Amino acid sequence: MSGNTFGKLFTVTTFGESHGPALGAVVDGCPPGLPLSEEELQRDLDRRRPGTSRHTTQRREPDQVKILSGVFEGVTTGTSIGLMIENTDQRSKDYSTIKDQFRPAHADYSYHHKYGIRDYRGGGRSSARETAMRVAAGAIAKLYLATQGITVRGYMSQLGPIEIAFKEWGAVHDNPFFCPDPTRVAELEAYMDQLRRDQDSVGAKVTVVAEGVPPGLGEPVFDRLDAELAHGLMSINAVKGVEIGEGFASVAQRGSEHRDEMTPEGFLSNHAGGVLGGISSGQSIVAHLALKPTSSITTPGRSIDVHGNAVEVITKGRHDPCVGIRATPIAEAMMALTLMDHLLRHRAQNAEVRVETPVLR
Amino acid sequence: MSGNTFGKLFTVTTFGESHGPALGAVVDGCPPGLPLSEEELQRDLDRRRPGTSRHTTQRREPDQVKILSGVFEGVTTGTSIGLMIENTDQRSKDYSTIKDQFRPAHADYSYHHKYGIRDYRGGGRSSARETAMRVAAGAIAKLYLATQGITVRGYMSQLGPIEIAFKEWGAVHDNPFFCPDPTRVAELEAYMDQLRRDQDSVGAKVTVVAEGVPPGLGEPVFDRLDAELAHGLMSINAVKGVEIGEGFASVAQRGSEHRDEMTPEGFLSNHAGGVLGGISSGQSIVAHLALKPTSSITTPGRSIDVHGNAVEVITKGRHDPCVGIRATPIAEAMMALTLMDHLLRHRAQNAEVRVETPVLR
Amino acid sequence: MSGNTFGKLFTVTTFGESHGPALGAVVDGCPPGLPLSEEELQRDLDRRRPGTSRHTTQRREPDQVKILSGVFEGVTTGTSIGLMIENTDQRSKDYSTIKDQFRPAHADYSYHHKYGIRDYRGGGRSSARETAMRVAAGAIAKLYLATQGITVRGYMSQLGPIEIAFKEWGAVHDNPFFCPDPTRVAELEAYMDQLRRDQDSVGAKVTVVAEGVPPGLGEPVFDRLDAELAHGLMSINAVKGVEIGEGFASVAQRGSEHRDEMTPEGFLSNHAGGVLGGISSGQSIVAHLALKPTSSITTPGRSIDVHGNAVEVITKGRHDPCVGIRATPIAEAMMALTLMDHLLRHRAQNAEVRVETPVLR
Amino acid sequence: MSGNTFGKLFTVTTFGESHGPALGAVVDGCPPGLPLSEEELQRDLDRRRPGTSRHTTQRREPDQVKILSGVFEGVTTGTSIGLMIENTDQRSKDYSTIKDQFRPAHADYSYHHKYGIRDYRGGGRSSARETAMRVAAGAIAKLYLATQGITVRGYMSQLGPIEIAFKEWGAVHDNPFFCPDPTRVAELEAYMDQLRRDQDSVGAKVTVVAEGVPPGLGEPVFDRLDAELAHGLMSINAVKGVEIGEGFASVAQRGSEHRDEMTPEGFLSNHAGGVLGGISSGQSIVAHLALKPTSSITTPGRSIDVHGNAVEVITKGRHDPCVGIRATPIAEAMMALTLMDHLLRHRAQNAEVRVETPVLR
Repeated sequence: MSGNTFGKLFTVTTFGESHGPALGAVVDGCPPGLPLSEEELQRDLDRRRPGTSRHTTQRREPDQVKILSGVFEGVTTGTSIGLMIENTDQRSKDYSTIKDQFRPAHADYSYHHKYGIRDYRGGGRSSARETAMRVAAGAIAKLYLATQGITVRGYMSQLGPIEIAFKEWGAVHDNPFFCPDPTRVAELEAYMDQLRRDQDSVGAKVTVVAEGVPPGLGEPVFDRLDAELAHGLMSINAVKGVEIGEGFASVAQRGSEHRDEMTPEGFLSNHAGGVLGGISSGQSIVAHLALKPTSSITTPGRSIDVHGNAVEVITKGRHDPCVGIRATPIAEAMMALTLMDHLLRHRAQNAEVRVETPVLR
Repeated sequence: MSGNTFGKLFTVTTFGESHGPALGAVVDGCPPGLPLSEEELQRDLDRRRPGTSRHTTQRREPDQVKILSGVFEGVTTGTSIGLMIENTDQRSKDYSTIKDQFRPAHADYSYHHKYGIRDYRGGGRSSARETAMRVAAGAIAKLYLATQGITVRGYMSQLGPIEIAFKEWGAVHDNPFFCPDPTRVAELEAYMDQLRRDQDSVGAKVTVVAEGVPPGLGEPVFDRLDAELAHGLMSINAVKGVEIGEGFASVAQRGSEHRDEMTPEGFLSNHAGGVLGGISSGQSIVAHLALKPTSSITTPGRSIDVHGNAVEVITKGRHDPCVGIRATPIAEAMMALTLMDHLLRHRAQNAEVRVETPVLR
Repeated sequence: MSGNTFGKLFTVTTFGESHGPALGAVVDGCPPGLPLSEEELQRDLDRRRPGTSRHTTQRREPDQVKILSGVFEGVTTGTSIGLMIENTDQRSKDYSTIKDQFRPAHADYSYHHKYGIRDYRGGGRSSARETAMRVAAGAIAKLYLATQGITVRGYMSQLGPIEIAFKEWGAVHDNPFFCPDPTRVAELEAYMDQLRRDQDSVGAKVTVVAEGVPPGLGEPVFDRLDAELAHGLMSINAVKGVEIGEGFASVAQRGSEHRDEMTPEGFLSNHAGGVLGGISSGQSIVAHLALKPTSSITTPGRSIDVHGNAVEVITKGRHDPCVGIRATPIAEAMMALTLMDHLLRHRAQNAEVRVETPVLR
Repeated sequence: MSGNTFGKLFTVTTFGESHGPALGAVVDGCPPGLPLSEEELQRDLDRRRPGTSRHTTQRREPDQVKILSGVFEGVTTGTSIGLMIENTDQRSKDYSTIKDQFRPAHADYSYHHKYGIRDYRGGGRSSARETAMRVAAGAIAKLYLATQGITVRGYMSQLGPIEIAFKEWGAVHDNPFFCPDPTRVAELEAYMDQLRRDQDSVGAKVTVVAEGVPPGLGEPVFDRLDAELAHGLMSINAVKGVEIGEGFASVAQRGSEHRDEMTPEGFLSNHAGGVLGGISSGQSIVAHLALKPTSSITTPGRSIDVHGNAVEVITKGRHDPCVGIRATPIAEAMMALTLMDHLLRHRAQNAEVRVETPVLR
């Protein structure tokens, strides 16, 4: 309950700092009998892994996950699953300059005021490195959801000023940006190369889609599926906005245009993004998230130190010039974790519900 | 945990249907010694109350709240506070047509698949009438936050296509739209009058601002302040998007532009919306929410019935042509509840933290 | 989370003071489709109701429960169920003497230190009157459990020094003590009559039994079924001890004697009380609880006032000379709520488990 | 929420099987600034460690704990603390006999019905080995509580039929039984030696005492301090009963005898065990727990296999003939964790309460 746990029935509790010995997670509530191996988790971890292209941080971490419990003879037992990734590339450096300074737009200042102490090495707990465990836990959720016919996939829909229309899922993994249109990749590479020369960073937009979700997931009032999705997605480092379906475009729409009409053959549109009254409708769940530009840039910035004195801060080290580039697997993980939790919650209460009405898509 | 509770330490649990005997809430975790009366709660309830202008639903509900427990001799005792509002204007009508049909873009279809049964009278539990209890509970949170120097206020920042720049707090309560610019009210009235003639509905955008929030509220990783704010705000009926600070505008921004630099005199900007690394920075917390157009319009729409047959549905009854108009007090309530919960959570763990670094605004 | 909620999936949140306007509860997570009426809840409430014999408090409360939400056309809808009981016999009296004094062995002193304020009228929130809502909520759980073949029943197994061996369920409701042996009732009546003449009070022991519980309920490690039962039962006013199965008698037993052997025809004994490793075994769940003597007796006692001065306190008013007498329905309620919560939790995770091994009883 | 987490604000989430690669825990919610090292945790782990006398299991585990996160420069940072103990003495053996059989009075049968699968090596998750992580987490709680003047200590108060009156804290750690009376140790040794010759096991009773607890800890109604203590203590393997203060002896007591009178110099007795109305009174918190005899004995027992056939089971391996012998540090840990959680919960809500009434002891 102190911030490091996500979910109510399928829970993920994480620990670990950027420059500590290891990151870890406990995944509790996984149904028994699910085939699970380190290799399967590794696939998603490798998609998030740093240092795989010149457009991301050059920290070299294998992010090799170990399963410490909860799996016996290749399948889950229903007990808690311990996961661990050891940090290997914690390049030692001199922190004496930054230990008493607050990097602008970082969590340094707010952590300092909250706790009175912070692990200043590489951002400590506020580092995006923490998201590795979300991806590992999310991979377990994805594997189970797949057994239920549910898939969760994402892509980059905007890089800085460059909007990217969806073309094909097949293209997403053929480039370092999770770009769904192969014809746009060169443009993105050129943009990123210029950005590095400018010693600056930029924001991005990521879209996540869940297909095959049965109608009925989500709880009324406060724990709506879209509300918990917003919680999960907004909890990712650097996210500043979340939309479900049409999102902010709904503001200027009229009801006659926005409402998704139904026919026996299916819904005629999906402006709602697959959620009605907080509960899944059976259509694809569609969410968009806005990621701010990385705060760690080498251009000097004005700030203060712990005594309140003015200082000029230069953020050195190995940083992503666009955190959005590696965010797609993390967003998928948070959507998968949210759906998994709600699938179990729905089952708990409504196991006996039988409905004859056909499921529309 | 089944959806009708919000918060972890300052919790609100609600019940009640649109056409049932009463709505109610239990507010648990309120600090003792807070002066509290029904009159104080009523002020916010009256701001959300239907039927106060021609631009909202004509249902006439006094929304008179009763305090049933937790207050003794005019102050809170620290025990759970029971609240109740009796429904008085549950106009009886013939539901035989709609009981087996799903109104397009309503929760009818998703509730039916979830529970196999639904209270079809006026939307039952999925009715926006449920938000009355959020406002009552939020008013308690606001009263306590005020004792700590924290204020939570909101306004309408867009009505359909009409964007409204913030002018002055004083203007917000002088018009039925919570419009912060008195010179724009006539335009809004004209727009709404035309909308009613068109028998259509429209979306809106609401902005909420918390001032005086101390730095340090929010928990790392999953329970970030912005993530829980997103949860709370997205849980409001009809909300399809949430932004913190610059929100989706961050996508196209560069780090050198977005980052909020600090000087001993204060922050130089507030693109972050008052949250750094998920923890309040001491700046104003700023959130925007997108509300979709009301689904209940009198223009016929295509749908299906419980047997899967095609039907044409006309939504009669008394409905808001723009749910966003009455949403400002609800958004304030959800922000107040979120801050209140995090204030208590922060205190629990960090009561002994003393920091000499000055608080910037 | 602040103390007034029980359960994780089937949750009960209560409010209300002894001398306030009403008691209430919100029951969340009930499966939809369960037939439910006020009459069915009233049956259990009447079993707990004060003033039905000369051996309990003479406060005359009809304890008439109202269902305010969550039930439509006679069945539950799956949304939160609001319950309320109005207080009618709040005899006004002069509290000026006791408002600044702490009655010995009451919650007065601990509430005062916790909250700095307390509702001194009749014990406020710490009054056993609060348990009425537990019984109402427990009655809902019992009704659902009955649809699954599970019954929860209790009886008084000791009154002060008088131990009562179980004879027959049929006898339990034919006397005001929930005594399972009709031949012992006269002895109990004589004991209580003498106790009242002595102006004293006495403790009691109650036994609760759940039959028909399927194997598999309960979670490993911390949320074991027996641990959560102990939580629920110990949370009843005046309870000072809880045993599962043999309880404290296990201390002096040897393993060869205590262990419950199994044959294809069933278990050969039930020393464990139906729980193995924290998970139900399919045998009857058996729990015993010890209730202390009522603290409210008319014999004067030494105490202090809020200023720390010595005072002599006489507790007037209408009190139960043995709170254990009315405790049986409350204990049943807490066991039913615990089982209900665990039934739903088990379903959530293990819905797909199929086992060929026969269930032993 | 799926069973492997304890606490609401100071939470402990554990994982690990008896014969898996490691045990681990995540401790979340610890106040920042607490000096913490592996050595300090090791002290309590060594007290629980197997193989330190001939009276406990001969499994040889160093139980060496590693801190993986949440501590920086020797003090806690307020973020989640990852703990790990690698299993080193997982003696490989042939499990083919027992994998399809249920050992009587073990969790084998109930786990099998719950999950349809179980890790049969050494009991898997149901092994008492799991309690090592409780002790490590409890040691953190103890260290913090010590900074608040609160100490938690325990001792063995009964071994099988031998009752042990408390003599002195100093004696407790000078013998392998946590016996508080040095004159009784020889008797205990002789009893245990005979028990091993009998190839049998026996139960025990352990008493835990917390001193220096301020009045006010505990929440009303469901989350009473005694109820959550009962939860925590009953969740320990083999515990079948929990008493607070006088416990079951209260049943036969009269109110005039049981009630703890107060004078300006202090309470005149502590029958209540330090809890009034579920809230700490400032007196010592006293709890007793009954542990059943170990089920693993080498005397053959009747049982069934997974197909329902009758089998005779002999439990080989290295087992404690009396699990109660090593239970004292575990009981202390669960009481410390419960108090720690309630200390933080109390602070959250009541940080501003100031009371002039003196604290009695």
